[in-house]
Amino acid sequence: MNSANSFGSRFVVTSFGESHGPAMGAVIDGMPAGILWDEQILFNEIQRRRPGTSAVVSSRNELDTPEVLSGVYQGKTLGTPIAILIRNQDARSNDYKQITSQPRPGHGDDVWFTKFGHSDPRGGGRSSGRETIARVVGGAVARMFLKEVCPQLKIIGFASQIGPFFLSSHALSTLSVTDLYQADRFVARYPSPAQEKDVENLLLEAKAHGLSYGGLAEIWIEGVPKNLGQPVFRKLKADFASAFMGVGAVTTFELGDGVQNVKEEGSQFHRREDDGSRYGGIRGGISTGERIRLRAGFKPTSSVLDVAKKGRHDPCIVPRAIPVLEAMAALVLVDHILWARGDRFV
Amino acid sequence: MNSANSFGSRFVVTSFGESHGPAMGAVIDGMPAGILWDEQILFNEIQRRRPGTSAVVSSRNELDTPEVLSGVYQGKTLGTPIAILIRNQDARSNDYKQITSQPRPGHGDDVWFTKFGHSDPRGGGRSSGRETIARVVGGAVARMFLKEVCPQLKIIGFASQIGPFFLSSHALSTLSVTDLYQADRFVARYPSPAQEKDVENLLLEAKAHGLSYGGLAEIWIEGVPKNLGQPVFRKLKADFASAFMGVGAVTTFELGDGVQNVKEEGSQFHRREDDGSRYGGIRGGISTGERIRLRAGFKPTSSVLDVAKKGRHDPCIVPRAIPVLEAMAALVLVDHILWARGDRFV
Amino acid sequence: MNSANSFGSRFVVTSFGESHGPAMGAVIDGMPAGILWDEQILFNEIQRRRPGTSAVVSSRNELDTPEVLSGVYQGKTLGTPIAILIRNQDARSNDYKQITSQPRPGHGDDVWFTKFGHSDPRGGGRSSGRETIARVVGGAVARMFLKEVCPQLKIIGFASQIGPFFLSSHALSTLSVTDLYQADRFVARYPSPAQEKDVENLLLEAKAHGLSYGGLAEIWIEGVPKNLGQPVFRKLKADFASAFMGVGAVTTFELGDGVQNVKEEGSQFHRREDDGSRYGGIRGGISTGERIRLRAGFKPTSSVLDVAKKGRHDPCIVPRAIPVLEAMAALVLVDHILWARGDRFV
Amino acid sequence: MNSANSFGSRFVVTSFGESHGPAMGAVIDGMPAGILWDEQILFNEIQRRRPGTSAVVSSRNELDTPEVLSGVYQGKTLGTPIAILIRNQDARSNDYKQITSQPRPGHGDDVWFTKFGHSDPRGGGRSSGRETIARVVGGAVARMFLKEVCPQLKIIGFASQIGPFFLSSHALSTLSVTDLYQADRFVARYPSPAQEKDVENLLLEAKAHGLSYGGLAEIWIEGVPKNLGQPVFRKLKADFASAFMGVGAVTTFELGDGVQNVKEEGSQFHRREDDGSRYGGIRGGISTGERIRLRAGFKPTSSVLDVAKKGRHDPCIVPRAIPVLEAMAALVLVDHILWARGDRFV
Repeated sequence: MNSANSFGSRFVVTSFGESHGPAMGAVIDGMPAGILWDEQILFNEIQRRRPGTSAVVSSRNELDTPEVLSGVYQGKTLGTPIAILIRNQDARSNDYKQITSQPRPGHGDDVWFTKFGHSDPRGGGRSSGRETIARVVGGAVARMFLKEVCPQLKIIGFASQIGPFFLSSHALSTLSVTDLYQADRFVARYPSPAQEKDVENLLLEAKAHGLSYGGLAEIWIEGVPKNLGQPVFRKLKADFASAFMGVGAVTTFELGDGVQNVKEEGSQFHRREDDGSRYGGIRGGISTGERIRLRAGFKPTSSVLDVAKKGRHDPCIVPRAIPVLEAMAALVLVDHILWARGDRFV
Repeated sequence: MNSANSFGSRFVVTSFGESHGPAMGAVIDGMPAGILWDEQILFNEIQRRRPGTSAVVSSRNELDTPEVLSGVYQGKTLGTPIAILIRNQDARSNDYKQITSQPRPGHGDDVWFTKFGHSDPRGGGRSSGRETIARVVGGAVARMFLKEVCPQLKIIGFASQIGPFFLSSHALSTLSVTDLYQADRFVARYPSPAQEKDVENLLLEAKAHGLSYGGLAEIWIEGVPKNLGQPVFRKLKADFASAFMGVGAVTTFELGDGVQNVKEEGSQFHRREDDGSRYGGIRGGISTGERIRLRAGFKPTSSVLDVAKKGRHDPCIVPRAIPVLEAMAALVLVDHILWARGDRFV
Repeated sequence: MNSANSFGSRFVVTSFGESHGPAMGAVIDGMPAGILWDEQILFNEIQRRRPGTSAVVSSRNELDTPEVLSGVYQGKTLGTPIAILIRNQDARSNDYKQITSQPRPGHGDDVWFTKFGHSDPRGGGRSSGRETIARVVGGAVARMFLKEVCPQLKIIGFASQIGPFFLSSHALSTLSVTDLYQADRFVARYPSPAQEKDVENLLLEAKAHGLSYGGLAEIWIEGVPKNLGQPVFRKLKADFASAFMGVGAVTTFELGDGVQNVKEEGSQFHRREDDGSRYGGIRGGISTGERIRLRAGFKPTSSVLDVAKKGRHDPCIVPRAIPVLEAMAALVLVDHILWARGDRFV
Repeated sequence: MNSANSFGSRFVVTSFGESHGPAMGAVIDGMPAGILWDEQILFNEIQRRRPGTSAVVSSRNELDTPEVLSGVYQGKTLGTPIAILIRNQDARSNDYKQITSQPRPGHGDDVWFTKFGHSDPRGGGRSSGRETIARVVGGAVARMFLKEVCPQLKIIGFASQIGPFFLSSHALSTLSVTDLYQADRFVARYPSPAQEKDVENLLLEAKAHGLSYGGLAEIWIEGVPKNLGQPVFRKLKADFASAFMGVGAVTTFELGDGVQNVKEEGSQFHRREDDGSRYGGIRGGISTGERIRLRAGFKPTSSVLDVAKKGRHDPCIVPRAIPVLEAMAALVLVDHILWARGDRFV
């Protein structure tokens, strides 16, 4: 796409809205007609992204009720653009007054002003994390498609590191699959019964003292159709990388074993007697049908105590970013499922 | 772009050619008129990418003479598409006969066949590393633009890890700037006088025994104009990630301190008394004018001894990938320089 | 654009909404930051398109109040997407019940159903003329840009034929410029004091008896910057043609003298001692700075008496289509003004 | 597409080459894998476009041998970009020396120079009709797809007006179908046994005296699949209009009865007891499966005697433009056949 606020080639999401303006929203174009409209998915995903749901995240309280303006009729998609609107209800822009004169370190506030000459300082305007609600909305619509067309497909997101705490390979392999797949039930979506309490304490204390932490988010995808991804510039891994690195505080992207790959001699690496997951489910840029494993690294949240102390921010953004990364993954998948239809014809 | 073989939104490179077909090539569209055509840049970059230039890389010998077919007249660009052709001269496709029946582990051979039903097995066809010559050609044209419009801009690529050898932060900081900026003069583009001999031995032995290694490549960019990058989906970091992850064996992408960021508490991270380079020169998705620091991780080369022993491959792809990553970086930069012209108007 | 509901390459309008769904709307992306937000232009253009303003057009009564949801702050554009919403207020979908079983002749009702398998029969859903409000909204935003960047530019639309009545070349040349430029003041936007009454009678009678007529609309553009249009596939005339032929009942497109050109011998045609307007202000696909003259032909309105007699339709769509064509012209102009910035650089 | 030299959204042709530069060419991306490569189609279409084949067209003699550089293997397409090269062999650029100082009337020579500041004056560079060979090449590849996927589809092009001579509706209806469908056998592709001699004389005389004529070309398409075309901005008629108006001297575009439509009262128009062809095979922007009828009007050829007398030009461009328009039509059709795959999914 040649538009800065649209994502995708066949399944295109256009995001709009400033953090403290009247509304956020998304227009989804390219959704085939006749797909069952499952509004519950939309509500769920918005709810999963919502701040204010636990003590360890921002206390900003947003009802975030989506209004579907077009593209759906009698419970099915029409093949026309689906526009979804979310009003900004809890927008105390006074909290951000200071920003104009004193930009928050690590934030893009000053950068945007320099770029555009005129920018909306209220809550970061469009560089705010609030913008990600448009992605979650788009991803929810993508999930409706996936539910119907690839019912076996499953997108699993969890935190594998929160500040100093991380899941070792060993820890990962000994966690129950249920824990892993239901990360939402854990504090900070970090599925470790053993470390859960430590992580909670870390984040509560961080919140109290204006500290912040980075971390790692894992997105696993199971039941992916083979043959997704286009060779050369639109490899599946390239599109996932673009999708994840387009999210606010993300500074690293890894496929499969990622940085572990680097260290290993090739004949060992390629012959290993295991599930082949070191390739992360993508070879030659194309999905193999095996589990796709993606990882995103986040720098510590930028908003710390003194500058925006009343700003309702998260001590670690990873837990709330997970539904956003899942949404981006869903968008990439649907885009490539539609695209792959043109690979062969006869 | 909605085409799998084109890259860019304003400055668009279309790549074509199979590894053992008649020719490789690129069409570059969006180059403004009147830019000085500096063919030496084109020759240099192709030469830098060329295999067969040292004992530690593939001995495939390609003359790779570019032929400029259009878009240039009397030493200047015309504002029309620039088509550049490189004949495949040294294409011993017999070496690859075995591939059809026995796909190379880690390669995309089987994946492509599954996807398309019909694919070119000769040397990997279009999934071959040979395809990257089109990117280097496109990048060379981008460099001509940069030379004229941003003469102060400098793209610096080097290896910071080759298999088990890596440059520590300390090593990096104590290397002379000259060494760093002239990495081409070192074996494997690994700018360490201290470890150079070790790296050479590692790779010679690997070549002899069919071993292979991964590694890390760094791309630094100095003198970048401020304000490049578009908010939301086309952040500068997202486009770099897509550009690098679209290259063959790349499995990780990092911005600035990258995986180091994850571990640090935010108030320390954001206040550090240093050059601000931990952000990697991009904040809010937009260039700040500071040095941009990008890092790509490579898995070990796939072609090992027994399957394609006569294949003329590299024990570690990192050195040869560096000119390719630099080219991709140049493409991203020119695309965004052209794009940024629309940010403001009056 | 590779999305069916988006128009433009640099200045991109995405249209959404079904005729009798909750709302219509547009998202405009690519508007530079800092442009003065002149809401009066938006109101005017919506008002100009509105049905129910005279006896000769549909009596559907829509207030069509636009709500600006994003992209504007303190009276200036932000460089972010501008989303504008218009609620559907007067949607008596019962009038259209019959359509499902008996498609309206000449309409796309049945065609859409065949294509998508599931479509919205209420008032034609998205194939309704109601959709054009999104274009008028987008065009109004484009006009704000033009007002600031090309204050001398003027888009002049009028009807040159309504059913059997047409302005001859002679009539055109003898009408006062004021009449021509203020066509809105005439019945059916047909600027002929002599024929005005006849046209009114024709349309009133047509309305009473369920008859309908086609016609011709002219769009003239004065004060166009030179050098707009991209060679080969994106010639300015090609983009205008796509823009106009993308409007509902349009079946012909002409540039300059259009069908008159065909009949003339070349040496006469090219040497004529006149204002050069036979070329229509575009040569080699590029604007010359002279007046651009475009013409669109409309087939008779499809909705005639017996099938949808209660449908509130227009006996001739040309008058109401004029603001839509003007809007499309404005979109093309801004797209190419932004694009032309990349033609040269140094 | 956001690139000036690429056409299509799913099936993308990129054109390159200056008239008197080393070569012309096209890269076709989006062709599915496994389509039979029928090189005879490619030769035929290039031959059909070729000047020098009769006394009434330009005597420029071009062998125009295509070289297929990529995308084809063992007689089938690979799903990768197909690059095709045609060397410029008969490029007597001295004939055009005068152009720099004295631009040809009606040509874009001066316009391009003004736009780009630097342009190739040799034979019009890229604004030359020579560029259309890239479109014919792209169209030939599209025809291979159509032959396999829609074997019943037939693209029929002929001239219906050459200067003062035109086929009346009556003449059209009384011509034998064979004549109509084999227009290539007639002088100037004008399928009128009665007027053939007159047309020939007209053109021979025009050639001798440096006169030129415009005319009309008809493109009919039979056996079109239903449901092609995307609503709103990418209606099938809009894409055909863009495709045709993107060709050099075209100044008008008509669908179905075109300018005839304008004059008729709607209840008569829509109820007529005939084959429905007045709609031109497209309703609501979407193909109905009926014959598609398109018409393009050309202004008189610009190159007349005194300025470029030695230039080898055509007294009427219509005959040679017909294969070009057919090629553009084929591109639009394949693009929309591929696109329509996403309309429904389940």
